[in-house]
Amino acid sequence: MNLKDRNLVTIDDLSNGEILGLFSLATDMFDDMPGQLDVCKGKIMASLFFEPSTRTRLSFEAAMHRLGGSVITASDVGASSLAKGESISDTAKIVGSYADIIVIRHPWEGAAKVVADYAGIPVINAGDGGHQHPTQTLLDLYTIIKERHDIKGLKIALWGDLKYGRTTHSLIFALARFGADILFCPSPGLEVPAHVIEKLVNEYGGEVERLKDSARTDDNRFSIDAIYTTPNSPHQLAMMPDLSAQVELKDGVDALYVTRPQKERFTDKEQGQNLKAKYPVVNKKLLQDKVFRKTMVMHPLPRVDELAYDIDADERSMYFKQAARGVPVRMALLAALLGAKEINVPDVESPKPPVYHEYQQEPRPTCSNPRCVSIQPTETPYLKPEYKIVNTEPLTLRCVYCEHGFEPKFVASTDWHEHKLDTKKYHSADSHWAKFIHPENLIVFNSEEEAQSLGFKPSQFVGGRH
Amino acid sequence: MNLKDRNLVTIDDLSNGEILGLFSLATDMFDDMPGQLDVCKGKIMASLFFEPSTRTRLSFEAAMHRLGGSVITASDVGASSLAKGESISDTAKIVGSYADIIVIRHPWEGAAKVVADYAGIPVINAGDGGHQHPTQTLLDLYTIIKERHDIKGLKIALWGDLKYGRTTHSLIFALARFGADILFCPSPGLEVPAHVIEKLVNEYGGEVERLKDSARTDDNRFSIDAIYTTPNSPHQLAMMPDLSAQVELKDGVDALYVTRPQKERFTDKEQGQNLKAKYPVVNKKLLQDKVFRKTMVMHPLPRVDELAYDIDADERSMYFKQAARGVPVRMALLAALLGAKEINVPDVESPKPPVYHEYQQEPRPTCSNPRCVSIQPTETPYLKPEYKIVNTEPLTLRCVYCEHGFEPKFVASTDWHEHKLDTKKYHSADSHWAKFIHPENLIVFNSEEEAQSLGFKPSQFVGGRH
Amino acid sequence: MNLKDRNLVTIDDLSNGEILGLFSLATDMFDDMPGQLDVCKGKIMASLFFEPSTRTRLSFEAAMHRLGGSVITASDVGASSLAKGESISDTAKIVGSYADIIVIRHPWEGAAKVVADYAGIPVINAGDGGHQHPTQTLLDLYTIIKERHDIKGLKIALWGDLKYGRTTHSLIFALARFGADILFCPSPGLEVPAHVIEKLVNEYGGEVERLKDSARTDDNRFSIDAIYTTPNSPHQLAMMPDLSAQVELKDGVDALYVTRPQKERFTDKEQGQNLKAKYPVVNKKLLQDKVFRKTMVMHPLPRVDELAYDIDADERSMYFKQAARGVPVRMALLAALLGAKEINVPDVESPKPPVYHEYQQEPRPTCSNPRCVSIQPTETPYLKPEYKIVNTEPLTLRCVYCEHGFEPKFVASTDWHEHKLDTKKYHSADSHWAKFIHPENLIVFNSEEEAQSLGFKPSQFVGGRH
Repeated sequence: MNLKDRNLVTIDDLSNGEILGLFSLATDMFDDMPGQLDVCKGKIMASLFFEPSTRTRLSFEAAMHRLGGSVITASDVGASSLAKGESISDTAKIVGSYADIIVIRHPWEGAAKVVADYAGIPVINAGDGGHQHPTQTLLDLYTIIKERHDIKGLKIALWGDLKYGRTTHSLIFALARFGADILFCPSPGLEVPAHVIEKLVNEYGGEVERLKDSARTDDNRFSIDAIYTTPNSPHQLAMMPDLSAQVELKDGVDALYVTRPQKERFTDKEQGQNLKAKYPVVNKKLLQDKVFRKTMVMHPLPRVDELAYDIDADERSMYFKQAARGVPVRMALLAALLGAKEINVPDVESPKPPVYHEYQQEPRPTCSNPRCVSIQPTETPYLKPEYKIVNTEPLTLRCVYCEHGFEPKFVASTDWHEHKLDTKKYHSADSHWAKFIHPENLIVFNSEEEAQSLGFKPSQFVGGRH
Repeated sequence: MNLKDRNLVTIDDLSNGEILGLFSLATDMFDDMPGQLDVCKGKIMASLFFEPSTRTRLSFEAAMHRLGGSVITASDVGASSLAKGESISDTAKIVGSYADIIVIRHPWEGAAKVVADYAGIPVINAGDGGHQHPTQTLLDLYTIIKERHDIKGLKIALWGDLKYGRTTHSLIFALARFGADILFCPSPGLEVPAHVIEKLVNEYGGEVERLKDSARTDDNRFSIDAIYTTPNSPHQLAMMPDLSAQVELKDGVDALYVTRPQKERFTDKEQGQNLKAKYPVVNKKLLQDKVFRKTMVMHPLPRVDELAYDIDADERSMYFKQAARGVPVRMALLAALLGAKEINVPDVESPKPPVYHEYQQEPRPTCSNPRCVSIQPTETPYLKPEYKIVNTEPLTLRCVYCEHGFEPKFVASTDWHEHKLDTKKYHSADSHWAKFIHPENLIVFNSEEEAQSLGFKPSQFVGGRH
Repeated sequence: MNLKDRNLVTIDDLSNGEILGLFSLATDMFDDMPGQLDVCKGKIMASLFFEPSTRTRLSFEAAMHRLGGSVITASDVGASSLAKGESISDTAKIVGSYADIIVIRHPWEGAAKVVADYAGIPVINAGDGGHQHPTQTLLDLYTIIKERHDIKGLKIALWGDLKYGRTTHSLIFALARFGADILFCPSPGLEVPAHVIEKLVNEYGGEVERLKDSARTDDNRFSIDAIYTTPNSPHQLAMMPDLSAQVELKDGVDALYVTRPQKERFTDKEQGQNLKAKYPVVNKKLLQDKVFRKTMVMHPLPRVDELAYDIDADERSMYFKQAARGVPVRMALLAALLGAKEINVPDVESPKPPVYHEYQQEPRPTCSNPRCVSIQPTETPYLKPEYKIVNTEPLTLRCVYCEHGFEPKFVASTDWHEHKLDTKKYHSADSHWAKFIHPENLIVFNSEEEAQSLGFKPSQFVGGRH
């Protein structure tokens, strides 16, 4: 299969089979590194890092050099184009006319999609704010598969900052797709965001069981907050929610995926709460627990204090292997998207994400995520907010850029006011009538003031359920 | 023709024929990109950007990689050598011993000439303050020729910040040399500097007609401030200065060259005047005017607000084509200056710039341009101010580095005080006698105090015309 | 000889013969640059500059490109990984899994050793704080040998900031090893640090004679502060310490090695003393002195004001030659450490550094050098302070990272308190009994408080010599 001219913006851009095909290619390449030196000869990778990063950038650049390609780098773009006020789409178009493939890191969520929309060449997301970091997910999955041969049925515990860790979000969806069970062990106050849970359940099936109370009180360990089980691995805890999470853990966990507190993304309030101080440490002592006897300790690095040096030499520690495996995985990805190598796609099942209706009417709500690319002053002159209607109860729109969801409070229908009614009326989003609005006619408002300023009047279905 | 070891510091460094020869090579290279991969194999380009720039730097680096060459980059040199106080000539000599060609961007005007003077290898100016940016001019000309086949007789309107736009200054001289007519449409307060006009008229012939009053009052458009016509295209407006500029425009303009307000170069006073706010926008509505029916819209990018996104898809919009064409043009230039490719120079006329006398005596006036390389503390220990005498009425000296001109107030002659007179005397620069001073004997002073402190006494020709 | 997988952290890592072998290779490479283009094909050099540097970085990168290799660069790493709090060992391990060789510059002294300890691939120190800069030393030596064919017996004057100039420290040891005599001419207040003198005498033999009073009062010249003579060049001044240094200089000096004031390393107090203002200048006038008639003027560059431009064209000026020779020297080094080229090692004598006892007990003193890598908060979680016992009178421990020495005030012995005595006792480090402690049993304390807090009681040998 040829992946030429495809993009990798979110992990959804690759099917399970394509991911496994890339992994085979990565292993072949790793086994014959000198043989890859002409694979991308004459090709140029543009490495655009609008946020500081050494590790990820150098990994991509090393991968391109190992393929015999060339690299042009802008590693602190904040100081140049941005300072002159250039939009992301302009940068994308221009660099797209210089290079053959773009690797982009950006602090704004959804920025990589914008680059992909405008560059005219393949684009790889190397991290867009707190949104996704799909190549990190690829090397995480590659490491699990290299060590355990399969992901299906594994128990993977996610540990630490599950709120801001973009690597975690991409990984959650990927693990679900490959059939793993996920134990959420967030640092208190840094739980998985609702939009991630919502997407997990709606798109990949399975269920998330929130545990009211965890028996664990060991202060060197997080409590399990929730457990996600895949559809074909029925969840025994669902029937007994008051049971301790230890039951689930009795056979041990296969991997402990640790992340650092992303304190650079903490809100002022979160900074004040000193969330980092409550962060427990994965260390030799913790790993002595029999639950972790065969557990792979994974971490996307860099670590701060949450992962002790005393386990570096432990054979369960995978984090430096993860980093090293980033090079062959990125080599395979670059070669595939540049059309320099084909991949063999095995015949595996890959959950298809549902096809959602697009929100088609005006007004376009402004995305409520302050880090979303669609609301930045340099981007609004050309970027129209776009949404998918991903849920009806409650009515939920998802921004196509940052994938944050929000629930409008009031709605109307173009059908009613254009064809049937003499006045334009708005309703509570949770009212009975709202359910009958066809998606293509849906109009949403964030407030009654907004509805009224646009000439709508309250219907009888405002102010409560009917 | 072989351009090996030549420099490109200002657009004057290439004749019209050489420019056209480079363009032929650029087109040949673009038509066979894979065939260029060994052209500069083993050669190293040093990319020295003392000012932030993503676009220009990446364009040069992509060009070098497309030729199979290597690149060493210092993209924020301000933080390193400069912080240690190193002079430009030392950097030039050292990097000149590492690389085969240097591409330099620097905030000081004339800096590229200093690098070229000391490096010992070919040097390309990628922008030196508000002075010149000759490769931008090359790709602008290349775009015009690609689209219209010839430049001679075209009407090109320059729009916006004509004061600080270095790309504009290089372009003005190039357009004049190739026989275009230029309509100056500056943003109020950002008119073309006098030294540019002076050089335009004195070196390229033709005439500049300033329009007292423009009939245009449309507030979405600048007035035409002046029109430059080439020598062999006699200017009908010269006889009727009160006529509206619309007469000139009746057949439409061939290109509208728009630039952003270079607000980073605005003086404090200009910042206060909010010049940017008065800047009109080139957008869909403006282009509906029949004057612009066949107009190429050009822009060196990045844009801020002066160029609307609603014309990006318009076939008249050239700015992304300009950027894309930068790569083959720079490939041709690099290959030619490195001696890796010869160019075919067509037999075209190229105006020869006049040969000026050099100012040879002491004192050396300090250049009055605060951004001139020659007055910077790190450079004065080795850099002697040098001037050309470019005009006699009024007496005008032009700095060889930044090309700013200035008019000294008082003069003397070495001939008089060394051979004929028993005392050293100084005269008003505009006095009758001043005209008889031979250029090789000329001594200039900026003030009577300076003249007197050097032992000169006032002659009878001080204080007014005689 | 094959140097594959060796490191170059300090100049001690190469024997005299290996250095000369590298120089032969460098000369061969320089004589056939096009022939080197495949030597390191497919190899990746990681250029990690945690401190700004243009010259050294570009020199290494040019060298790697001349060998046909690739380069990945992090040139202002301070802003990325460090900001996320990553340790040097983690960076080393990760980059070690991407690249084939690492070149590291870092502000912390001993950082290059840490990288070498953890990277798993060859590491070259491109400057670690005020500690060492061994490749600068190599190109300095190469220049001397190219110009004078041998180093033995040459008189080399070191001039200027001998306190903070890391290039000077590496050079001092290398010159001593090759048998040169060294004249120390420090700027007042910037004398050679004691630990450098101590190492010089103890490890390379010879002697350092401090001159009480120099006859020189010429205010354009530093006084000679001390003279180092190699073992086989007995020092005539030793018998006549009051003699002026001019006697020593009567035959002239072979090289004047000038450095800029490293004012970025000055302490606040030193900043206040305006040490830079007292810095004399090497210029045309100074070089007219017959002492300097055949003197090579050397400088690692960048210069500030201490080296005048009026001698740039003088044939004695070597500094631009030094810089240019950095490329072939670094090419030879890279090719050798990557195992791509063997070197021919001539049969020359190379002083063997003495083998010291390691300090083996607890407590581990904290290194007193504030710039030592071993005391930085990101490094202490994994880095155990390590010391060598380099002297017994006075008892001196040398940090294995930054090589600073310190003299503990109080000592104890594990032998005594574990096997013979019923109580743990501590003694003055300069007491008679302290000399009998076996190195493997030595315990050191910086204060009586420290000893007592660890349960030791004062012996009778505390408070004075016995």
